[in-house]
Amino acid sequence: MNTYAVILAAGQGTRMKSKLYKVLHPVCGMPMVEHVTTNVSQLGVEKIVTIVGHGAEKVQEQLGSRSEYALQEEQLGTAHAVQQAASLIEGKSGTTLVVCGDTPLIRPETMQALLDHHAATKAKATILTAIADNPTGYGRILRSEAGSVEKIVEQKDASPEEQLVKEINTGTYCFDNEALFEALKLVSNDNVQGEYYLPDVIEILQKQGEIVAAFATDSFEETLGVNDRVALSEAERILRARIAEKHMRAGVTLIDPATTYISAQAEIGADTIIQPNVVIEGNTKIGEDCFISSGTTISNSIIGDRTTVRSSHVYDSTVGEDVAVGPFAHLRPQSNLGNDVKIGNFVEVKKSSLGNGSKVSHLSYIGDAEVGTNVNIGCGTITVNYDGKNKYLTKIEDDSFIGCNSNLIAPVTIGKGSYVAAGSTISKNVPSDSLAIARARQENKEGYATKLNGKK
Amino acid sequence: MNTYAVILAAGQGTRMKSKLYKVLHPVCGMPMVEHVTTNVSQLGVEKIVTIVGHGAEKVQEQLGSRSEYALQEEQLGTAHAVQQAASLIEGKSGTTLVVCGDTPLIRPETMQALLDHHAATKAKATILTAIADNPTGYGRILRSEAGSVEKIVEQKDASPEEQLVKEINTGTYCFDNEALFEALKLVSNDNVQGEYYLPDVIEILQKQGEIVAAFATDSFEETLGVNDRVALSEAERILRARIAEKHMRAGVTLIDPATTYISAQAEIGADTIIQPNVVIEGNTKIGEDCFISSGTTISNSIIGDRTTVRSSHVYDSTVGEDVAVGPFAHLRPQSNLGNDVKIGNFVEVKKSSLGNGSKVSHLSYIGDAEVGTNVNIGCGTITVNYDGKNKYLTKIEDDSFIGCNSNLIAPVTIGKGSYVAAGSTISKNVPSDSLAIARARQENKEGYATKLNGKK
Amino acid sequence: MNTYAVILAAGQGTRMKSKLYKVLHPVCGMPMVEHVTTNVSQLGVEKIVTIVGHGAEKVQEQLGSRSEYALQEEQLGTAHAVQQAASLIEGKSGTTLVVCGDTPLIRPETMQALLDHHAATKAKATILTAIADNPTGYGRILRSEAGSVEKIVEQKDASPEEQLVKEINTGTYCFDNEALFEALKLVSNDNVQGEYYLPDVIEILQKQGEIVAAFATDSFEETLGVNDRVALSEAERILRARIAEKHMRAGVTLIDPATTYISAQAEIGADTIIQPNVVIEGNTKIGEDCFISSGTTISNSIIGDRTTVRSSHVYDSTVGEDVAVGPFAHLRPQSNLGNDVKIGNFVEVKKSSLGNGSKVSHLSYIGDAEVGTNVNIGCGTITVNYDGKNKYLTKIEDDSFIGCNSNLIAPVTIGKGSYVAAGSTISKNVPSDSLAIARARQENKEGYATKLNGKK
Repeated sequence: MNTYAVILAAGQGTRMKSKLYKVLHPVCGMPMVEHVTTNVSQLGVEKIVTIVGHGAEKVQEQLGSRSEYALQEEQLGTAHAVQQAASLIEGKSGTTLVVCGDTPLIRPETMQALLDHHAATKAKATILTAIADNPTGYGRILRSEAGSVEKIVEQKDASPEEQLVKEINTGTYCFDNEALFEALKLVSNDNVQGEYYLPDVIEILQKQGEIVAAFATDSFEETLGVNDRVALSEAERILRARIAEKHMRAGVTLIDPATTYISAQAEIGADTIIQPNVVIEGNTKIGEDCFISSGTTISNSIIGDRTTVRSSHVYDSTVGEDVAVGPFAHLRPQSNLGNDVKIGNFVEVKKSSLGNGSKVSHLSYIGDAEVGTNVNIGCGTITVNYDGKNKYLTKIEDDSFIGCNSNLIAPVTIGKGSYVAAGSTISKNVPSDSLAIARARQENKEGYATKLNGKK
Repeated sequence: MNTYAVILAAGQGTRMKSKLYKVLHPVCGMPMVEHVTTNVSQLGVEKIVTIVGHGAEKVQEQLGSRSEYALQEEQLGTAHAVQQAASLIEGKSGTTLVVCGDTPLIRPETMQALLDHHAATKAKATILTAIADNPTGYGRILRSEAGSVEKIVEQKDASPEEQLVKEINTGTYCFDNEALFEALKLVSNDNVQGEYYLPDVIEILQKQGEIVAAFATDSFEETLGVNDRVALSEAERILRARIAEKHMRAGVTLIDPATTYISAQAEIGADTIIQPNVVIEGNTKIGEDCFISSGTTISNSIIGDRTTVRSSHVYDSTVGEDVAVGPFAHLRPQSNLGNDVKIGNFVEVKKSSLGNGSKVSHLSYIGDAEVGTNVNIGCGTITVNYDGKNKYLTKIEDDSFIGCNSNLIAPVTIGKGSYVAAGSTISKNVPSDSLAIARARQENKEGYATKLNGKK
Repeated sequence: MNTYAVILAAGQGTRMKSKLYKVLHPVCGMPMVEHVTTNVSQLGVEKIVTIVGHGAEKVQEQLGSRSEYALQEEQLGTAHAVQQAASLIEGKSGTTLVVCGDTPLIRPETMQALLDHHAATKAKATILTAIADNPTGYGRILRSEAGSVEKIVEQKDASPEEQLVKEINTGTYCFDNEALFEALKLVSNDNVQGEYYLPDVIEILQKQGEIVAAFATDSFEETLGVNDRVALSEAERILRARIAEKHMRAGVTLIDPATTYISAQAEIGADTIIQPNVVIEGNTKIGEDCFISSGTTISNSIIGDRTTVRSSHVYDSTVGEDVAVGPFAHLRPQSNLGNDVKIGNFVEVKKSSLGNGSKVSHLSYIGDAEVGTNVNIGCGTITVNYDGKNKYLTKIEDDSFIGCNSNLIAPVTIGKGSYVAAGSTISKNVPSDSLAIARARQENKEGYATKLNGKK
């Protein structure tokens, strides 16, 4: 039996008060509609059709070839939205899952359970429902004695008794695909808003004597639809907790999971300890036995085993094993650190590689540089990579020692095993095993300070 | 009908265990009594009388002319406290709101609803009540069939049945002003503590056959009185959530509202994204489409649209549009940045202006400087503004380029379009379109490193 | 009456998914088993016997002489574990407390109450119980009319009615010591797991007609046993809240106690204000009236009164009174700052002392240095303490003034009251009251920039 998925992603989302199209707002770093697409993809569906409208191009750009698209030019209701998929899936036999692009938290397992229930009950439509502590505002599910759905009653139409029902419609459904599109033709917009509503399909099918089932998930919070930024932050909190639990169960220590912000895609090795207020973004991969301290952001980077990153920012970089970074270091994109490297406080590395065992312990800028192994770069060293017009490379070969407060004016090479004296500005290449020095002679003017002080 | 407000702010607050007077402890950056005064002010009251006692001068200093003051020299109870306002408002016709200086969370809307209820019921006194899940310790409100108040029963006097009552006295009241001061004269201190209690006024009015009403707010947490630092942190948490919700509803994304610390006065534009663990203090105004990353503190500053501030501290400064600050930058007071400015990592700016398009990308100190437009200040540049005695100005004109690790010894001017060579210490003015250089010639001593290493 | 304690600390803890032995996982910076030992020690017990197995050596290393040890070579159940203590305490008259090494939250007060209840009821065994909202999975306590324990029913054996019982066995007990070891001999391993279970002792004693009592603590969360990292983070959260409340009640302001991470041992003076996202580790002692801002880590250090630490890291150091540190400073071990010192942004201090009134305001590295009083160290100053082979000392005497971007090549002494000119590299001692200068003369090449720009 084929399965199709229709993702409703055409709405404006005015309550977001945003220039950004609603379903593109990220939750844990990933746009909502991408969460939905990723989750749906895990069901082995034949085809995903995303209904786009407002911001159609941006949504298509985000999802690319993972989905096909149908354009809903005017927003005339959820039934009208699904109808737009007709040219792609109408008439095919199989089951169609309809899910909103603003429900990023519904797990694939839950969707699969919905589909399984649908198949088991031989229903033409099955509603994903949940039990709400406070159901006010939601459509209530009225069930028959036998458990099938008799009716969805909207809040405004609910009798006092019906208002007590806590089982609510989550807005996620699956349908017999052929029955769906037949029923859609019968939906009218004869209502106050003048819209075509998808729940009307349920009523139509039922009047036709078809079975309408409901599958109640035991997690109400999972079905949260995001309509404003308050709900967005709720979705973020729930997904954050889910991600944190996954890592903790796999052997990662999170001192305070509530304030550890890990992307859905990140991987973290066992026995790594992550302090609170750490942000791990994108496709970051952290090894085992690492320590990541409070105040760190790591984005799209690879961190080797037993590495420590303290209160630092790391972007699009690769860090080896047994490395110490920070506190207060900044690895900008394309920084590649070998093993046993030390990047100390107030050090910036940009588009540079450092070989095994090299150290930049303090107050330095290493940009556009190739640094060999076992190099010691003294405090205050600057690779002068920019002349106001172009950027140039600095090459520091193995085993060299750069004295403090040196300037290395690129393009320049410091040969293997060489020394640069503290305070030198180096503009010419230094051969291997040499000492380069460029500084003025010290003069002590005795008694001069007394004179200066006298003026005070 | 005139409205008066009496704010009770004379107590010691011994449970705060503080040298700071209780009502001056801040909640979300603003002293509690100032919250109360600000909230009361929104009711359009004729006169605010703050009853001061312990720390009277500091409270008066804090509130200034927004209130009048009555001194309660000895703390003889809440009725005695209100009595001190007699010389300012006794005998005037109108309504008097009495509110404690340690209840910073009661919203003006709630106070207004209390006043409206008071007017509607033609009561002589109306109590602000709330429904407590656990009412233990609070005075219980006993109502008549008709809904008027029959009695306030204190915890210690409550029968087991009365203890089950969940409607409690919040300690906020409004009174017919004339009736209030007449009744105050009848309050006695014939009780264990020897104090004059304001709730006795309620009983007196009722015995006189007057109507005593109660208005129940639906938010118990709003009525929280702060008596110790545990309650202080609770008040902070509640107000923080309220402030966060306001911004989210207006279109600001807060990744984790629970750990985003925004002052009551701050303004933030739509589509700005604020990461967790950001502190925004005082009268800060942040534009639209900004990104403020984790670890940032911004205090009393203005940040333009589309500006990014990452893990930095910004105080009393003005930052333009499309500016990038940080990570790990420090803008000290009176830093004024134009548009398209970059302040990179490990850069400190103090009492300086930078024109549009200028960049200080790394490891620099810009203090007491006027920097023109499109200036590039190299890594490690220092404005040497202090000679141990005085501070001097540095002027860097448009389009100049300061080489890395330069010292600019103030007072000094770098003329328009000039270059300073890396590693130079500049003590004399540089004319426009010049190159200034001050450094020693490089010498390479070949084989010297081998010799040095031989000694190891 | 003597009291003995047996701490069960031999289990593997496979669900931790860790190379670290379970009871050694820290909660608020202290290994779980050390919490238990510390708590038990406060009861004035005669002898503590820790049953060790997996990771025995590491546990012994952690607890040292605070406990005696019995090795459980094979993990054959809790009764078997207690049995291992026989050679140390069997036959002695008195009471034996048995507590698990993975329950770090049980307070000494609760243990004492258990012991008191045990004595009062003249029981041979007393179970510490708690009331669980959701008791699923726990052994249920079935009591007689008179309140004594009739039975502990495990989840799998509980009838539907018994499953409704909310009083659960926490796994902490006290026993008459002689009765305990007699009963242990009767425990069999005739069960599915083939283990010897300690609760069987309860049943044995009861069948012998002895009194078995239960003492119910009113805090279920206190009895949490840590079996995986989710529970570990829960324990951390609970203990964090307990520590925070202690400090708040004593007069410390915590803006957000939920995100303030204070070790169990830390001491903090009244009227100190601690912002969110601060980590205070180990035996740190912070004075009164301090301000510790967000993003700070302080570890095993002493901070004097009225000192401000902003977004900095401080390790194993001593900081005086009225000191300002940060933002973004790093005090590495053995930094000793006098009073009225300023350590500004992007400053690293390592193994150095600074006298009263000295200032290092920006972008400096002070390592292996003795700095006198009232010294002003200019921006960008570096103590060049390392020649690639050895570390050397820098001495800067009182009242001296080090110009910006200076290198002080150790070993070197800057005499009292001397000046070092900005941009100098100092390799020879500077006498007192002298000016030391080492820099090249500035040359302005007029028009040169125009030429350079022409090339662009």
